[in-house]
Amino acid sequence: MPSDAAPRRTYSYLGPAGTFTEAALAQVPEARGQIWRAVHNVGEALADVAEGRSDAAMIAIENSIDGGVSTAQDALARIPNLRIVGEYLVPVEFVLVGRPGARMEDVRLVSAHPVAYAQCLDWLAAHLPEHQHVPASSNVASAVGILDGSSPADAAIAPPGISAHHEVEVLAEGIGDTADAVTRFVLVTGPTPPPSPTGADKTSVIVELPEDRAGTLLEMLEQFSTRGINLSLIQSRPIGDALGRYRFVIDADGHIVDERMADALMGLRRFSPNVVFLGSYPRADRAIVHYPDRYSDEVFVEARDWLRALISGEPAA
Amino acid sequence: MPSDAAPRRTYSYLGPAGTFTEAALAQVPEARGQIWRAVHNVGEALADVAEGRSDAAMIAIENSIDGGVSTAQDALARIPNLRIVGEYLVPVEFVLVGRPGARMEDVRLVSAHPVAYAQCLDWLAAHLPEHQHVPASSNVASAVGILDGSSPADAAIAPPGISAHHEVEVLAEGIGDTADAVTRFVLVTGPTPPPSPTGADKTSVIVELPEDRAGTLLEMLEQFSTRGINLSLIQSRPIGDALGRYRFVIDADGHIVDERMADALMGLRRFSPNVVFLGSYPRADRAIVHYPDRYSDEVFVEARDWLRALISGEPAA
Amino acid sequence: MPSDAAPRRTYSYLGPAGTFTEAALAQVPEARGQIWRAVHNVGEALADVAEGRSDAAMIAIENSIDGGVSTAQDALARIPNLRIVGEYLVPVEFVLVGRPGARMEDVRLVSAHPVAYAQCLDWLAAHLPEHQHVPASSNVASAVGILDGSSPADAAIAPPGISAHHEVEVLAEGIGDTADAVTRFVLVTGPTPPPSPTGADKTSVIVELPEDRAGTLLEMLEQFSTRGINLSLIQSRPIGDALGRYRFVIDADGHIVDERMADALMGLRRFSPNVVFLGSYPRADRAIVHYPDRYSDEVFVEARDWLRALISGEPAA
Amino acid sequence: MPSDAAPRRTYSYLGPAGTFTEAALAQVPEARGQIWRAVHNVGEALADVAEGRSDAAMIAIENSIDGGVSTAQDALARIPNLRIVGEYLVPVEFVLVGRPGARMEDVRLVSAHPVAYAQCLDWLAAHLPEHQHVPASSNVASAVGILDGSSPADAAIAPPGISAHHEVEVLAEGIGDTADAVTRFVLVTGPTPPPSPTGADKTSVIVELPEDRAGTLLEMLEQFSTRGINLSLIQSRPIGDALGRYRFVIDADGHIVDERMADALMGLRRFSPNVVFLGSYPRADRAIVHYPDRYSDEVFVEARDWLRALISGEPAA
Repeated sequence: MPSDAAPRRTYSYLGPAGTFTEAALAQVPEARGQIWRAVHNVGEALADVAEGRSDAAMIAIENSIDGGVSTAQDALARIPNLRIVGEYLVPVEFVLVGRPGARMEDVRLVSAHPVAYAQCLDWLAAHLPEHQHVPASSNVASAVGILDGSSPADAAIAPPGISAHHEVEVLAEGIGDTADAVTRFVLVTGPTPPPSPTGADKTSVIVELPEDRAGTLLEMLEQFSTRGINLSLIQSRPIGDALGRYRFVIDADGHIVDERMADALMGLRRFSPNVVFLGSYPRADRAIVHYPDRYSDEVFVEARDWLRALISGEPAA
Repeated sequence: MPSDAAPRRTYSYLGPAGTFTEAALAQVPEARGQIWRAVHNVGEALADVAEGRSDAAMIAIENSIDGGVSTAQDALARIPNLRIVGEYLVPVEFVLVGRPGARMEDVRLVSAHPVAYAQCLDWLAAHLPEHQHVPASSNVASAVGILDGSSPADAAIAPPGISAHHEVEVLAEGIGDTADAVTRFVLVTGPTPPPSPTGADKTSVIVELPEDRAGTLLEMLEQFSTRGINLSLIQSRPIGDALGRYRFVIDADGHIVDERMADALMGLRRFSPNVVFLGSYPRADRAIVHYPDRYSDEVFVEARDWLRALISGEPAA
Repeated sequence: MPSDAAPRRTYSYLGPAGTFTEAALAQVPEARGQIWRAVHNVGEALADVAEGRSDAAMIAIENSIDGGVSTAQDALARIPNLRIVGEYLVPVEFVLVGRPGARMEDVRLVSAHPVAYAQCLDWLAAHLPEHQHVPASSNVASAVGILDGSSPADAAIAPPGISAHHEVEVLAEGIGDTADAVTRFVLVTGPTPPPSPTGADKTSVIVELPEDRAGTLLEMLEQFSTRGINLSLIQSRPIGDALGRYRFVIDADGHIVDERMADALMGLRRFSPNVVFLGSYPRADRAIVHYPDRYSDEVFVEARDWLRALISGEPAA
Repeated sequence: MPSDAAPRRTYSYLGPAGTFTEAALAQVPEARGQIWRAVHNVGEALADVAEGRSDAAMIAIENSIDGGVSTAQDALARIPNLRIVGEYLVPVEFVLVGRPGARMEDVRLVSAHPVAYAQCLDWLAAHLPEHQHVPASSNVASAVGILDGSSPADAAIAPPGISAHHEVEVLAEGIGDTADAVTRFVLVTGPTPPPSPTGADKTSVIVELPEDRAGTLLEMLEQFSTRGINLSLIQSRPIGDALGRYRFVIDADGHIVDERMADALMGLRRFSPNVVFLGSYPRADRAIVHYPDRYSDEVFVEARDWLRALISGEPAA
């Protein structure tokens, strides 16, 4: 909640203005009116947080077209004391833009970041079969280049948000080949108490397996299943220090203050040589987490009371 | 700790004096000089405790020749608020005794409880091929009968302890067909704090499975295995209220105040519609319980501290 | 199907005529008109089969009052090449009988096998509070003794079947303290193909665990649960060759020719240092075995065909 | 083995000549002298195989910098009847090249595909702090542009293989920020028998979970762990047809003709509504697969023989 008196907060994100990452950051109410720091890649964004240059960083974490997701996962595993505090979804849509007054029928050269270009091939083949590609260094640079004349292109592929920042003519919308593509972003800070549980939360951890033998993965997953916790993401990543050793990137349904999740996290901690807790935070889709009644907080509390009575020698209730 | 001032304690056991159960009770230092109450069966002994007539009961719980073990297990499952506080092993040995001055070569009629008789058949066939069996109502009544003349027999099969109570001539020792046979007894009281852990403890529970479907037994056992706890006894018993429903009688290595056992018991409580905690108590064989380092108390405590730091937002240590 | 031409078959059972075991044997249609060989205990009955003196033996296997069940289980584990081919239930009921013309009001001395006596204590306390017990060597010997005058008793406790073999006056029926008590018997032969599956079958095995570490029991049970097989009996038994080693007596729902059971048995065989297959046979209660569709024979056959196609390089169907 | 007589085979790969994918294809002995068909993306390459335009396609499958790995995984899940027949590793290294005779000290403008550019940022900051970036459409186009004059740049970032195809001056080697980065490629064909087992094989599958409930993931993994099979890759991917449904991309150690793998695959098939078998093929690293003795082929064969003997009623060996 910024005020004139309070120092402003700094948010790092993959810039420049107009990227999908910026669109994710725009979904954060607390970030409005604060300092937005455009950086060149995920590593830089997280280093800003770890080293105190920024209060938070917005990074792509799944299905990104802005860059590699495994890079982000590996950085989160490597840099200590980072915490995810929020999750944001941004539809991956592209528009074709030109200079003000431009018309589709005049487009010959299309400026585009190569990855974005690859995602619009079908549309381009159908609507601009004669075009040629002029590579751009980002989804924003493509549009800026045609506006400032530094690119010879007639049109540029850019995110829909581009028109908020630049005076462009939108020639076509929804030109991406995959409808409904979405990139998932997370907002990362330094150590901080997790946001309050909402009932629609997820918890992210990175867990190293104790040894490379059949069975340890199973044993790790039992920490969740024996507490009725569902996983929405599991991904093995080579640890890199030796052949055949893996860590697992996991998103689990629920919040660290849920009894069953707290219990599972302690189980993981006891089991694994290295657990990185990345945070508990509200799901972007606000989908309420369902779980069997037998894993409710009350059941855990009741079991603790029961144990206490047994140890003290009281008769059963 | 009896004194002249303190009221004496009462111990129920399967009598009369001279039974294997009495031999088990004789192993309890605290029972010396107290009131020993001989009863006719396990149900009576446990009812004495439950209804306050006795402070404790000694009952056979495994491999008994004095009577049915499943009877004892079912009674422990049914009668609430009983606690096992100690375990005792008694070798199941038999001696052949006669009246003072009797000699082997004169033995024709052998008095014996039918179950004991069946356990000495091989020896009798080899050494007294011509004998005949006179049934007795207990392993002690057999000997008493030949002494008081109420039995026509010349000799009796009895536990070795018989000579401490009655003036008999021991004609042969070790006449049981199974060497090394042992009966396991437990001492049962009302609700009381468990005896202090010794490092060589076991914990007994009776657990009802939630439903009769493949998998719940496994899920129940995972409560132990995921905490590194070994089981020394597991036995299914029909619950009796409906076809196909079972409860499980379990002895697990460790003590309720061990972190891993406490955690497992809470897991059981959450999982099962009905868990009967029968107690944590020193093993009769004093065998130290071994377990993987990762299940030590320290590991549990460390995991709790770690969780607490995460929730409070502290950086990792 | 015996005929004049065919040699008669021999069945060993715990005798004499009139025992619960004989009542079990009487349920076997094939045993009618054959030689019934009364023996003194389970070990003798099984040895008769193993050594060719008998074609089959009927033995009590669960909740027996005629004798120890763990004895039977241990014998089945120890003696090779035995096969269970049938299961039979006998209600454990007792009657009080006297000599012809006897009357309840004259009964003072009651002859009874001590185990049977213990099971009728409540009834005796209520209806014959002044009686005294005269021990008998079996549930049949009690009645025979009052008939032939070798026992001083006025009445005897015996199984209901006694009146089929002896001229007795039934003084009271249903005098056992536990209503609905049932003993389970099995008919045991030498190696033979299992009886054809009926849809209501069970399979009995005795499985040794590979090592005494937490987890092997679980691993063993997974052989069943991962094939959708339910267990109706599981019981740990010390192996006896070293402290802390156990084997497990297991009854599983289904027949060895069911694909899922065959698969589970092979899994057990690969897992365990020692699996004793005791047989697949119809359940006494004729209860149809239910299992999830995904474990039906068709699913197994389909998976095999799929695998074969993959190995041969055929496209998927 | 091409000859003048045999028709030549066609291999699709992400072109043009000089890409990392081409370097992977160059590792395939059978591909030498055949037709190499450069395509624009993974989808196109796999469609070539599925629709018969090519005999095989080389695609990046893990840690790619040439493009999205999840795209490849999703395409393999979607397009039926593809088979992986080989795995290849290509070190992800970059060189800085110029026109013949060029010198480092004259470099001001650097042409690079934006993803490659991001991977060399540290080196560029250290060695060419004053440079500016000119985006290129691929790792090969960057070098071609400076040679044919279509790019204003003085130098280009390219894979080391570039000098085999183009007359360039190598200005610096090993300029990537991550040492030891490797991309994993697979060679994909239509339905075909798997290559013969080498002892150092892996098996790739894509498995759909039956339902979104805690426990099915575990149940799926047990198909491997209960047969002693280790996994080297596991990755969840949203199925996309409904919220919260996942499929899993899995690499498992071993070959489909190994008994334990065949057994696991059949288990998966029975468990899952949809299993895509992608193939069994030699590991690129030729690392011999180790597994517990109890999962050897002999043990499986022995168990089958044992089962057969039981069903036929033979005595145990």
